[in-house]
Amino acid sequence: MKTDNNLNKSRRNFLQKSALTGAVMLSNPYEIFSGERLSMGSLLNLQAGQNVKTRGYAAKDESGKLSPWEFERRPVGDDDVLIDVKYASICHSDIHQLKGHWGEQQYPQVPGHEIVGVVAAVGKNVTKFKVGDRAGVGCMVDSCMECDHCKHGEEHYCENGETLFTYGYPDKNSPTGISQGGYSDKIVVRDHFAVHIPENISFQEAAPLLCAGITTYSPLIRADFNIGDKVGVAGIGGLGHMAIKLAVAKGAEVYAFTTSPDKVDDIKAFGAKEVIVVDSLEKLQPYRGKMDYMISTIPYAYEMSSYADCVKPYGFFTQVGVPVGGEYTINNFNMMFNRVNYNTSLIGGIPETQEVIYFCADNGIKPQIEIIKAEQVNHAWEKVVSKDARYRFVIDASTF
Amino acid sequence: MKTDNNLNKSRRNFLQKSALTGAVMLSNPYEIFSGERLSMGSLLNLQAGQNVKTRGYAAKDESGKLSPWEFERRPVGDDDVLIDVKYASICHSDIHQLKGHWGEQQYPQVPGHEIVGVVAAVGKNVTKFKVGDRAGVGCMVDSCMECDHCKHGEEHYCENGETLFTYGYPDKNSPTGISQGGYSDKIVVRDHFAVHIPENISFQEAAPLLCAGITTYSPLIRADFNIGDKVGVAGIGGLGHMAIKLAVAKGAEVYAFTTSPDKVDDIKAFGAKEVIVVDSLEKLQPYRGKMDYMISTIPYAYEMSSYADCVKPYGFFTQVGVPVGGEYTINNFNMMFNRVNYNTSLIGGIPETQEVIYFCADNGIKPQIEIIKAEQVNHAWEKVVSKDARYRFVIDASTF
Repeated sequence: MKTDNNLNKSRRNFLQKSALTGAVMLSNPYEIFSGERLSMGSLLNLQAGQNVKTRGYAAKDESGKLSPWEFERRPVGDDDVLIDVKYASICHSDIHQLKGHWGEQQYPQVPGHEIVGVVAAVGKNVTKFKVGDRAGVGCMVDSCMECDHCKHGEEHYCENGETLFTYGYPDKNSPTGISQGGYSDKIVVRDHFAVHIPENISFQEAAPLLCAGITTYSPLIRADFNIGDKVGVAGIGGLGHMAIKLAVAKGAEVYAFTTSPDKVDDIKAFGAKEVIVVDSLEKLQPYRGKMDYMISTIPYAYEMSSYADCVKPYGFFTQVGVPVGGEYTINNFNMMFNRVNYNTSLIGGIPETQEVIYFCADNGIKPQIEIIKAEQVNHAWEKVVSKDARYRFVIDASTF
Repeated sequence: MKTDNNLNKSRRNFLQKSALTGAVMLSNPYEIFSGERLSMGSLLNLQAGQNVKTRGYAAKDESGKLSPWEFERRPVGDDDVLIDVKYASICHSDIHQLKGHWGEQQYPQVPGHEIVGVVAAVGKNVTKFKVGDRAGVGCMVDSCMECDHCKHGEEHYCENGETLFTYGYPDKNSPTGISQGGYSDKIVVRDHFAVHIPENISFQEAAPLLCAGITTYSPLIRADFNIGDKVGVAGIGGLGHMAIKLAVAKGAEVYAFTTSPDKVDDIKAFGAKEVIVVDSLEKLQPYRGKMDYMISTIPYAYEMSSYADCVKPYGFFTQVGVPVGGEYTINNFNMMFNRVNYNTSLIGGIPETQEVIYFCADNGIKPQIEIIKAEQVNHAWEKVVSKDARYRFVIDASTF
């Protein structure tokens, strides 16, 4: 009902605005909509002030089963860009959140926070992008932009609590009442929260950088290890395989800890010096105190402190995977003896997200991906959960 | 049976040795036992090579109820000192361990790792102490003494896993098969693991420094805060009240977090700038991100990450209390946003234990204690658990 109401309202808005501006469907995608300085692409059949009709895949309930859904996004505002989505990739977080593992959700909800495409329209205040630019959107789409954190590139830590994550968060500007993610053919986002995708990386290989890339890059940079230092990576899926490639690119000697013996060859190809198949916690013993730094992407409950034991005393262990309920059990007997500092890390700010995109593009660091069609998404989710993803599924948005 | 066997063996040993040395009960406590260079006190009725008859209070099973127990300690070896215990104080760890909260125990077991007294005998190799010296024993009584950690004052992290904690640990030299703690009238310990108690602090006020003091001192020193920095202390019992006094002495502005409103006046007297009575987690909100460093002594499961929220981003939070089972639940959603480094700390090495004793003695830092008789120990334990200790019970060892 809410959607219908908004739809009607947006139609009224459109009629009012088009009376003022004479806006109709434009034929040239780069043509400037002079009356409101709204640039837009013709193929989108878009009118200024009108909600943006979108096709996507949504979960309708906590089963997390995705199915096609048509919905509307907000009109392109003065500070917004409209992106014609080309690819959206699948993060384990999509599954956790949509299945209610991290708390009750509002449905229908479209997941997806690794989004790339072409700018199809820009609001009148937008200077960062022009129509036709290649752009990406990650895990957040708005914040207060006024607090110290927002002003200094830590929009994910907005002091006013206004960080708007890409899907499932209350959003008064969204016709559906919540933010809706990237498993869809279009997205409207405040310009600041889109990043440039340079020409020297493909759309499909850029997509996973928007979460898997930045979420591992940010703590690896903060860890500030030296060339030749030993960096452990636990959990070699979408995030973990990026962590290996990024740490190797930054000069680390990488030790990869996986529970999947059939990933060993891949992992060596990613650049890891050694692969440890952890079929029992005893396999961790020889590495006790050996790592200068360690990052874990394991997204389920596990005996974390036994992995932390692999870090040298007073070193750091960063957990970026988030399990069901968001909670880990921490064994303080182990932590007393290993003397390791445990922390976690949340994605990264917009400037740092832009940085990792350029870093990967310039250094040929590419996620290992598998392109799928929208109709394959439920099957792909099952493979992510069963550790059978190799290593990031990327959805061709033309199939939504 | 084992005890009896050892007793017989030690009697045989005594007879053999006394035949060689003419050793009998000495009348002068400072007299040197020339044949074996074993110095001993007459009041102990001690013979070289003989097990040391000891009176103490032990738990006989997991009820943790303590009752009088007579047992034997090993003979005073060449590197050992025998201490005539004057006071032993009560740590919450005694209760946890003896009740089996941290794993299955062997009984009878004598708890106690805050022990002070007078040296009553020394082995022939001992130069660190002479008979009559004031001495203290803390949480460990032996280690390999050969590994890097042991050689560098981190005997609690012995690389050969030979750290022998003061009670309840397998000890081949102990007639009872395990180490036996300080709720007793005598203790035999390798000289290195006893520390000097200077004249400018009383025995009874020195006792709690052997665990409560060092366990809070060590992480506070490592935290390396600046004068005027805000240090949070959560859980104001035996350890917590020492943490306040030590942090204040090191120049911190201390914020104390307690669940006991009737401790507020005491805590201010300890030097805390502010006392926060945490009757609900909401009380923590105003302190979010305000502490430069924080230490928690809370020895039970609690919502730790909400307390960690009080530390400023990228700061450190040290947990020294250890709950039932040794495990805490850690909320990674909170930890993602607070960006705090969580660690824990295990007592401190022998040189640092000696350091905190001198530091407290020289700076007039004294625990707030209540002297009790041995027969009151079970009641005192109940008061520790019910948060009614003010703030450390110290047992007069003459009442064992």
